[in-house]
Amino acid sequence: MKALVKESAGPGFVLKNVPEPTIREDEVLIRVRRAGVCGTDVHIYEWDAWAQGRVKPPIVVGHEFAGEVVRVGRLVTDVKEGDRVTAEGHIVDGRCLLCRTGNAHVCPHTKIIGVDRDGCFAEFIAMPATNVWHLDDSLSFDIGGIHDPMGNAFHTALSTEIVGATVLVTGCGPIGLFAIGICKAAGASRIIATDINETRMALAKRMGAHDVVRPEHAAAAVRGATDGLGVDVVLEMSGVPTAVHQAFELVRVGGHVQMLGIPAKPIDVNFATEVIFKGITIYGVVGRRMYDTWHKMTRFLRSGLFDPTAVITHRFPLEAADEAIRAIKSGEAGKVIFEVV
Amino acid sequence: MKALVKESAGPGFVLKNVPEPTIREDEVLIRVRRAGVCGTDVHIYEWDAWAQGRVKPPIVVGHEFAGEVVRVGRLVTDVKEGDRVTAEGHIVDGRCLLCRTGNAHVCPHTKIIGVDRDGCFAEFIAMPATNVWHLDDSLSFDIGGIHDPMGNAFHTALSTEIVGATVLVTGCGPIGLFAIGICKAAGASRIIATDINETRMALAKRMGAHDVVRPEHAAAAVRGATDGLGVDVVLEMSGVPTAVHQAFELVRVGGHVQMLGIPAKPIDVNFATEVIFKGITIYGVVGRRMYDTWHKMTRFLRSGLFDPTAVITHRFPLEAADEAIRAIKSGEAGKVIFEVV
Amino acid sequence: MKALVKESAGPGFVLKNVPEPTIREDEVLIRVRRAGVCGTDVHIYEWDAWAQGRVKPPIVVGHEFAGEVVRVGRLVTDVKEGDRVTAEGHIVDGRCLLCRTGNAHVCPHTKIIGVDRDGCFAEFIAMPATNVWHLDDSLSFDIGGIHDPMGNAFHTALSTEIVGATVLVTGCGPIGLFAIGICKAAGASRIIATDINETRMALAKRMGAHDVVRPEHAAAAVRGATDGLGVDVVLEMSGVPTAVHQAFELVRVGGHVQMLGIPAKPIDVNFATEVIFKGITIYGVVGRRMYDTWHKMTRFLRSGLFDPTAVITHRFPLEAADEAIRAIKSGEAGKVIFEVV
Amino acid sequence: MKALVKESAGPGFVLKNVPEPTIREDEVLIRVRRAGVCGTDVHIYEWDAWAQGRVKPPIVVGHEFAGEVVRVGRLVTDVKEGDRVTAEGHIVDGRCLLCRTGNAHVCPHTKIIGVDRDGCFAEFIAMPATNVWHLDDSLSFDIGGIHDPMGNAFHTALSTEIVGATVLVTGCGPIGLFAIGICKAAGASRIIATDINETRMALAKRMGAHDVVRPEHAAAAVRGATDGLGVDVVLEMSGVPTAVHQAFELVRVGGHVQMLGIPAKPIDVNFATEVIFKGITIYGVVGRRMYDTWHKMTRFLRSGLFDPTAVITHRFPLEAADEAIRAIKSGEAGKVIFEVV
Repeated sequence: MKALVKESAGPGFVLKNVPEPTIREDEVLIRVRRAGVCGTDVHIYEWDAWAQGRVKPPIVVGHEFAGEVVRVGRLVTDVKEGDRVTAEGHIVDGRCLLCRTGNAHVCPHTKIIGVDRDGCFAEFIAMPATNVWHLDDSLSFDIGGIHDPMGNAFHTALSTEIVGATVLVTGCGPIGLFAIGICKAAGASRIIATDINETRMALAKRMGAHDVVRPEHAAAAVRGATDGLGVDVVLEMSGVPTAVHQAFELVRVGGHVQMLGIPAKPIDVNFATEVIFKGITIYGVVGRRMYDTWHKMTRFLRSGLFDPTAVITHRFPLEAADEAIRAIKSGEAGKVIFEVV
Repeated sequence: MKALVKESAGPGFVLKNVPEPTIREDEVLIRVRRAGVCGTDVHIYEWDAWAQGRVKPPIVVGHEFAGEVVRVGRLVTDVKEGDRVTAEGHIVDGRCLLCRTGNAHVCPHTKIIGVDRDGCFAEFIAMPATNVWHLDDSLSFDIGGIHDPMGNAFHTALSTEIVGATVLVTGCGPIGLFAIGICKAAGASRIIATDINETRMALAKRMGAHDVVRPEHAAAAVRGATDGLGVDVVLEMSGVPTAVHQAFELVRVGGHVQMLGIPAKPIDVNFATEVIFKGITIYGVVGRRMYDTWHKMTRFLRSGLFDPTAVITHRFPLEAADEAIRAIKSGEAGKVIFEVV
Repeated sequence: MKALVKESAGPGFVLKNVPEPTIREDEVLIRVRRAGVCGTDVHIYEWDAWAQGRVKPPIVVGHEFAGEVVRVGRLVTDVKEGDRVTAEGHIVDGRCLLCRTGNAHVCPHTKIIGVDRDGCFAEFIAMPATNVWHLDDSLSFDIGGIHDPMGNAFHTALSTEIVGATVLVTGCGPIGLFAIGICKAAGASRIIATDINETRMALAKRMGAHDVVRPEHAAAAVRGATDGLGVDVVLEMSGVPTAVHQAFELVRVGGHVQMLGIPAKPIDVNFATEVIFKGITIYGVVGRRMYDTWHKMTRFLRSGLFDPTAVITHRFPLEAADEAIRAIKSGEAGKVIFEVV
Repeated sequence: MKALVKESAGPGFVLKNVPEPTIREDEVLIRVRRAGVCGTDVHIYEWDAWAQGRVKPPIVVGHEFAGEVVRVGRLVTDVKEGDRVTAEGHIVDGRCLLCRTGNAHVCPHTKIIGVDRDGCFAEFIAMPATNVWHLDDSLSFDIGGIHDPMGNAFHTALSTEIVGATVLVTGCGPIGLFAIGICKAAGASRIIATDINETRMALAKRMGAHDVVRPEHAAAAVRGATDGLGVDVVLEMSGVPTAVHQAFELVRVGGHVQMLGIPAKPIDVNFATEVIFKGITIYGVVGRRMYDTWHKMTRFLRSGLFDPTAVITHRFPLEAADEAIRAIKSGEAGKVIFEVV
């Protein structure tokens, strides 16, 4: 089959023919229809320090996808050929303290598809049946293909109190844009979003942000919307050091900062004034709650509370991987997806 | 001043002239502009068993209102003449365990205006400044006059998880209708409402319910909308025994039943099958969270997330108290208000 | 092998030889060493209405046990021969909404060992590996054999706030006794327990209750210990109608009633005065949280925070099943166990 | 009256005669019997950068105390002459969003006694009646005089889940020592404490820590006690940069870090590896929850669950202020108190 492969320790992906994956008895084989391209894929493409420490080439990359089941292992009972599905890309042990107390998203034995084992930028992918998520009939493969990053946004927003809240979203990449729409649907009373790119700012507006401003105007926007108090919640979606400091500055005392954006380097934090005296709570977001997040997401999508369609701005075939990566790096894209079949 | 008075131990109210209230140093005097009429007022009007046990005539009745401050006590610092206000009608001690741990709504020393001390169906009312709630500039006195029952609805809905939830609202009186609109704004994925009156059913639809059915069709509607599982949340707003049983029947295992409607008599409950084996949580709703509920309510109203205007179906002068009571008893009204000035 | 069997639709158990269970590829075979006898077993023994509606003879009864693994299925990776284990007796589907959002204890597809499939009053039992719980090295098979009912007690107590709380435990059967010890270890500031049997009352004292009184003195004990306010938490462990009413009467406004005891018949509840005006929360307890409860339990036991040894008052061989049932029915026993091997 | 005064912008305190405080109508006058000395007092004594930016001399210092009420304002109804009391030292506005939604501890208009207005290192102090806390009859003035820092410890420990948890306490100053005893009483299954001073380490053991080690051995102690996973909860009580990093390192994935110790300078944090990928929650602790913390504290003390007596290691008269400050700065003291009368 055709697959995008990280072939060796160095930049780039290679499109090549590889053997179709075999499946274990508790796994299913899925024909990939759509696959989302993620910042993580860019790291692996560029072969940065993180990628060098984590990824062992050769490996098929990609972890966001949707498709159809074409084969099921002997032990699989609840997935069948022809099912339209997407999947949780974190393959966890299912038995540890974390997995068994509602924290599988931080299972220490997690293997991520496209990072630790073969991924989805290919015609087929093998997945444990337990990770398969049935795609609601009302949802397209396009939407199915981006359940993973939408799930990050649902996890970020809905693990704090959004109903009635004032919210600042710092960073309008795809996950930030999703989060805006989720907060809107979940009853946020005011959503302020920041970015530096006009396309993304326009998308933020379209997803439901009340105010979309450049970072240098965020303080004024927040103060104006909150009687000078600060917002109840900040969703930090950029990983940019100035945005992290702004999160701590513009959240109200006693408020919540949800951190999803991954800073590339250490940040100098004045815990006394930025965290402790403010009495705030900081939550580090990784992955998706398994599977609360997935249920919430399906309900939002199926009921029409949330529609992410506008966020998908670019579509490429697997053959155009370099262009897809370039589109993301430009900082001007919403969500970029591969149309695999 | 003119006031509706419960003059003696028996049915009815009397409109008469009474002295203007005097205020203490920590109180304010408010000119009443609008006042909501409540089921509780009907109980007092009819002089039922509850009223006989609680109310000591003579007393000015009424506990839902909005108006303008016309005088402030010497010690009052944060309310001033001319302020447009409404008020929390539960006057609590502010010092007990409950008041000091976020549970003032169940303070054992609560005095309710219009029940335990003079109320608001009058040209003026005296209120402790600490109970006064400033009306947002964007809100009319009509809306201000119904903050109390809207607050009941906010308390009922938002003390459980509504985001993404499937919700059954049993009973579309004014508070049930408000609750529908609140759940809609707070991201419920499906709202099913029941009533037997066509006017109220139409209002339920208008407030955002996805399905509005008669009680005998509730089970089918719920099963259909939830793959047979039952709803995540029931808001029991009727106090009718069959609705209470239906709440327990149609909530899913592990779900939540919020009980606001007040049954007139004991109900025979099979705790084994209706509560314990289902693993459900039941919450008894009284009053409004002081003042979380008020803040949430103001945010919903000010931001436009929630608009209760359609629920107000009847308006009367104080002189037409008998007709107002009659309108409520008909079971066909939404919210009934007095236009006092 | 030797097993206690419910052979036909009528009272009693029969001790007889039955074939050793076969195991599926994802199951293990366990040699039973100790097994706890439960009120549920009494219902099945007596063949009451509930048993008639649920149990299909012939079936090996019993659902609480500990023992050693003697065989493991081909697909089992985390349990091995020789492991000392106990098990969660609720076999759930693992895939439904409830199972995947932390509510497996109310999975609609639950099969209970000894009720819906062959149980543990036998020399061997087959269990899905996923239900097996490793017994801490420091714990005896005696303690292992009662993890199931201790788990009920942990679930009941620790699904509300016990730290610093005043607690009333109505009913000092084994689970009530366990709950007293758990509350003590979890920092309850005052524990009042009620029962009518002297042996159980003495055990309640030994497990750490500050006050142990007969039900008719509970009101005085609670009022005295709480400035007349009522307790923060009631753990209703009896299922007796008067105890249920007492729970609602003696819990403070805004407090929590955890209901584990299963009333045999409907109870007439005045929701207005007993639930709604008091603003209380009622939680129906079924099974054990899978597997938060098990982790908490292991930590309490291993650390020595909680020692249930004193609660075990009777030990019998399988041959003495009638006596074991009689001991439970007397209302004088703590925990009754079978010494199987 | 005699008082310790910060007289001018520079190091030191002066003991001098100042006029007895006058009280407002809603205040009470308290004869101070015992007063605790705090790190904050050391900052003011030393006149460091924080003190220079916040404190306006001349001012009577000190904010932890207990004593007897000797005069009450005309409007005070629930405190009377002769009452044995302590007090919450944060004087808040009582009306803002924070105060009215359970977050008075971060009220933006807080005035702290001994920092922003005259404090308690004096024979008398004036306090708003609303801040007065009645001392339980069973408690000495010694214990009353340290309610403020004990309250910090209760807030730190009990705003996360301690029941059954493994806990690391980094720093065994007085508040860390209190926190150890609180965690012990609240059912922590394992408490590991770190410090570098032998006296404090011995006190940590006495307060109930299972393991007390120097910071360089903390990692081994935590790994050993948690199967290598890390602790559920870290209480960071030192403010030392290496301890903050250790908190992030030794908390398990998905765990909680409660930060009370105040770092003197910014700390370089790798949010990717220390916070986000670990999925942890960080909570900045300031003051005491008003008044949940106070109720919990009284219950722990009155019931005997928690006894802080051993932590008080030094007692001085007001005349020996320099020695008291010196004792704290030595890093060898537990709690230092003034015996005022």
